[in-house]
Amino acid sequence: MKRIHILLTSLCLVLGMLAQAQAVKRMEPAFWWVGMQNRNLQILLYDNAIANATITIDNPKIQVKSYERTANPNYVFINVEIASDATPGTFPIQITRGKKQTTINYELKARRSAANAKPAFTGNDAIYLITPDRFANANPGDDNVPGFLEPADRNNIHGRHGGDIQGIANHIDYIKNLGMTTVWMNPMIENNQPEYSYHGYAPTDFYAIDARYGSNEEFKQLVEKLHQNDMKLVKDQIFNHCGSYHWWMQDLPAKDWINSAEKYGRSNFENMIVSDPHQSQLDKDQHYRGYFDTNMPDLNYENHLLATYMIQNSIWWIEYANIDGLRIDTYPYSDKNFLIDWRTQLEAEYPGIFVVAEVWVNDVPYAAFWNSPGFGYNNYQSGIKSITDFPLYYNMLDAFKPDGDVYKVYKALTMDFLYGHAENNVIFFDNHDVSRSFAVLDYNLKKYKLATVFTFTTRGILQWYYGSEFLMQESANHGVIRQDMPGGWEQDSCNVFTLENLTTDQKEILALNTQLLNWRKTSEAVKSGKLIQFKPNSNIYVYFRIADNERIMVILNNSDYDKTLPLNTYNEVIQGFTKATNIITQEAVPLKDSITVKANTPYVFILN
Amino acid sequence: MKRIHILLTSLCLVLGMLAQAQAVKRMEPAFWWVGMQNRNLQILLYDNAIANATITIDNPKIQVKSYERTANPNYVFINVEIASDATPGTFPIQITRGKKQTTINYELKARRSAANAKPAFTGNDAIYLITPDRFANANPGDDNVPGFLEPADRNNIHGRHGGDIQGIANHIDYIKNLGMTTVWMNPMIENNQPEYSYHGYAPTDFYAIDARYGSNEEFKQLVEKLHQNDMKLVKDQIFNHCGSYHWWMQDLPAKDWINSAEKYGRSNFENMIVSDPHQSQLDKDQHYRGYFDTNMPDLNYENHLLATYMIQNSIWWIEYANIDGLRIDTYPYSDKNFLIDWRTQLEAEYPGIFVVAEVWVNDVPYAAFWNSPGFGYNNYQSGIKSITDFPLYYNMLDAFKPDGDVYKVYKALTMDFLYGHAENNVIFFDNHDVSRSFAVLDYNLKKYKLATVFTFTTRGILQWYYGSEFLMQESANHGVIRQDMPGGWEQDSCNVFTLENLTTDQKEILALNTQLLNWRKTSEAVKSGKLIQFKPNSNIYVYFRIADNERIMVILNNSDYDKTLPLNTYNEVIQGFTKATNIITQEAVPLKDSITVKANTPYVFILN
Repeated sequence: MKRIHILLTSLCLVLGMLAQAQAVKRMEPAFWWVGMQNRNLQILLYDNAIANATITIDNPKIQVKSYERTANPNYVFINVEIASDATPGTFPIQITRGKKQTTINYELKARRSAANAKPAFTGNDAIYLITPDRFANANPGDDNVPGFLEPADRNNIHGRHGGDIQGIANHIDYIKNLGMTTVWMNPMIENNQPEYSYHGYAPTDFYAIDARYGSNEEFKQLVEKLHQNDMKLVKDQIFNHCGSYHWWMQDLPAKDWINSAEKYGRSNFENMIVSDPHQSQLDKDQHYRGYFDTNMPDLNYENHLLATYMIQNSIWWIEYANIDGLRIDTYPYSDKNFLIDWRTQLEAEYPGIFVVAEVWVNDVPYAAFWNSPGFGYNNYQSGIKSITDFPLYYNMLDAFKPDGDVYKVYKALTMDFLYGHAENNVIFFDNHDVSRSFAVLDYNLKKYKLATVFTFTTRGILQWYYGSEFLMQESANHGVIRQDMPGGWEQDSCNVFTLENLTTDQKEILALNTQLLNWRKTSEAVKSGKLIQFKPNSNIYVYFRIADNERIMVILNNSDYDKTLPLNTYNEVIQGFTKATNIITQEAVPLKDSITVKANTPYVFILN
Repeated sequence: MKRIHILLTSLCLVLGMLAQAQAVKRMEPAFWWVGMQNRNLQILLYDNAIANATITIDNPKIQVKSYERTANPNYVFINVEIASDATPGTFPIQITRGKKQTTINYELKARRSAANAKPAFTGNDAIYLITPDRFANANPGDDNVPGFLEPADRNNIHGRHGGDIQGIANHIDYIKNLGMTTVWMNPMIENNQPEYSYHGYAPTDFYAIDARYGSNEEFKQLVEKLHQNDMKLVKDQIFNHCGSYHWWMQDLPAKDWINSAEKYGRSNFENMIVSDPHQSQLDKDQHYRGYFDTNMPDLNYENHLLATYMIQNSIWWIEYANIDGLRIDTYPYSDKNFLIDWRTQLEAEYPGIFVVAEVWVNDVPYAAFWNSPGFGYNNYQSGIKSITDFPLYYNMLDAFKPDGDVYKVYKALTMDFLYGHAENNVIFFDNHDVSRSFAVLDYNLKKYKLATVFTFTTRGILQWYYGSEFLMQESANHGVIRQDMPGGWEQDSCNVFTLENLTTDQKEILALNTQLLNWRKTSEAVKSGKLIQFKPNSNIYVYFRIADNERIMVILNNSDYDKTLPLNTYNEVIQGFTKATNIITQEAVPLKDSITVKANTPYVFILN
């Protein structure tokens, strides 16, 4: 029944779009809202020679500020100002071409109550990252949709496997029980490319959910269902580029809408150039005007029409689907000034909304550049308060790989003074772009546990990639890393949702992660406590998380030896406490002269 | 004749000190000046039971603010305020012990004219670092001085070899002709330890030049002679510690004058702890209260009497000897708050005086912490505008060692945005604490030249260690690195000052360095020009230094292949120029389509 309901809803939406399409080929955004902070709205109309038409809006609450035309006669951009006392409803846009007149009834919707209030993200949060094509295929009937270029083929690691929105919705319980608080999915907007776009990062329509996943409406309902489960959704937002089959690529609004592939080629991928005070213009241009991939034309935000288009697009999705936060793809590759304009307008609508910028760099300074309140030489203020903590991720792997030294993570954290908001960094165990950490840690279960406990208890907002909770271990190329979730497809013999055919190790790790993640959600010390770390000794790292009424002591014995630690070293924190209870084993140990820790074993104690 | 004059001068000084010594064993500072910005002066008196004496100063221009006594009755600290209209001369300090009365006539000297005006240090400067015991022995009669514990022994690499002030003074011409603008010597203050103190970093008297080098007066004359040669002097200032044979170690003014060796042991030497927002108190204490070496007691600046003593000491030397700048030893090991107090008082007397802090760290963030205007987490503002650029030094060696990649220095410089004043960083080729770079570069002459040209032409204030200009190549331990300058001792068969018995390579490098260093002094682009660097390609690094009327193009072909570079890559800088003249060879090449550069060869072009 539900399925039929959704189909009907989708049908209505499609019919509505078709009705508009009678007047013009494209109108974006398709609707907007009254009561936004920014009362300006730019409406893109795309149709044959639309620039030659006379367009009028005759409504006392809708003031046309300007009609902007480009060198391409098939586009008009109407800039309107919506009166502060405008009410929800429609207003007509009259299009006169010669003697022919058509009308579009443009809808201004009512906002939901408290639409601008967005939840905080803190150290308690755990974000579950899903590659939606690879998670669960609830509706195999969606796998191939007429008009879409790439057929589903589960045997092609770089192809589409059929995962969909309903597949995710069906397994919210699993994600919630695991202890996650938030879901972030790789982009679900349309990627109608002939090949290799299951990942979602080659958008061909910024306003539509890819029909292979479901509809815009279904996406909105997924967010609703997450909210009903006290969970949040982070949407993946791409600014840097579009897919080479984006609808506008056949008929660009303006020559400078995208950067020239001939002139700039591929990006040099050197994110460090952006903050280099000695940068050459050549390197800088090649970095941010060069193409991220050959099938991803680079968008040029010096075109103000595009800038407005994309700012509106990001706001539209938040308002439409009640999204809780954004993850910005390839953040340093976009125009720095555009990013400030975007964030300023975003925060005007949704003060304090969570935004995490993907900043893929190995070194803390280049990451911190994006979320610090301005450095010596270059006083750039991005205003971004959270970045993906790649430096800590790399150091985590270096620290916990066999023969690694835990000093690496200690040292990485000493650089936190560079960040404006290190506690908001999104820390992660692995993600869709890197080998599964279990593989990098050489399939060593003890090291896996040490790395997991570290990632669960250090400062930051946690992000976890689907499947790593039960030892998914793929490495090498992207298609393989983004493995299908076992049990997401009907024919799967192994099923993580039912524990069917999981190995003993997989079950043990899934249980450990579930235990710790659910404990983590209850810990004020992990959420917002101070981190105090002691210089590691003999590959043993001791640190504390301290809240007003809770003290957590973490000991990571990353060495191959059992060791007895004198406890007076930690007097400044443990004085007054007599006992420590191990969160994992529930065993209590007295806090007397010393404590013995086993080789390659993590301990999480609560002090009593 | 001159020698007799100096001896007489020294004799007068010693007799003067003996006269004061009739009244007390020690009085420090021995004299002061009228007209200082800070009109407060703390006079330390040290004598048997002096704390029980009645001390009076009866002079309308000298107001006693307080007498501070400690638990040790052998000390009194007199705090006076000198009237703004006080004139040079003496004032009596009356000391009454029972019926016995003695008088010290404390001298307030006149300041030299414009004593507070100090020269700027810029990218044109080249600082020649000398280990004074190892440079030149002009007065062998000074090698052993009665009362000094360690006899001279040139065969002991860790012993005293006899270098002295006159030895340096005799070779100012050599240093100047080489193209250096400034001399920095390892500390010349008294290090009367029984062994291993030729390096100067174990002071036993902060107010006296070590008699094995000469006298305070001779030191002052050396500065005068440098100034007559348009050169400057940077004094090495130690705050962190004293030598274990410092005079006060036998009878400490207060228990907390030094930190407890029993309690804190050796330092953990982890400079990163200082800026770690997650630091434990234990690690922090061990870092800055632990001993730098077992024979170097750690001074505790929480004792305000010591803090004032050392602040006055640094000002006393500048005023006394007309010193141009300071190099602060082991800067991060001292109390952060003391360092701010010190710098504030120093700059009140000598606005803008050059101070370079030795910050020995491998990573830019830890170095930048000390000279940036405040970072995200930790808003500490040291106010220091120059640090020793160890990160660039390490990357320079990594880049130019055989099979090294020049990308290393490019990347290091991209982090300059972290520094408040990267252009003031003191960059160096090697120094007294590290192996000679020629050895680290595997005695490879081509790599040596590349590294030298890089160090001479990138941003920063240059520092050079004596002897490396003609391929001194010692490595491993300190005593060996601080080799005697050939020709500094009469019996030397090889003599760098006369070129006697230098190898062809040594002569070639000395000539090249002399040529480039003297050119460097004339280049506005090197001095203050903008640095623009291009991302290296195939181990070839191209960068420019650009002033209003001068463009310098540096090409470092660090690869083993000759290469033809297309010149249009650099259009943003070279457009409009038709010719480039090689500074080294004086050859001119046309700036047309391309330029061919030889394997492992540096090029410095001026664009015409």
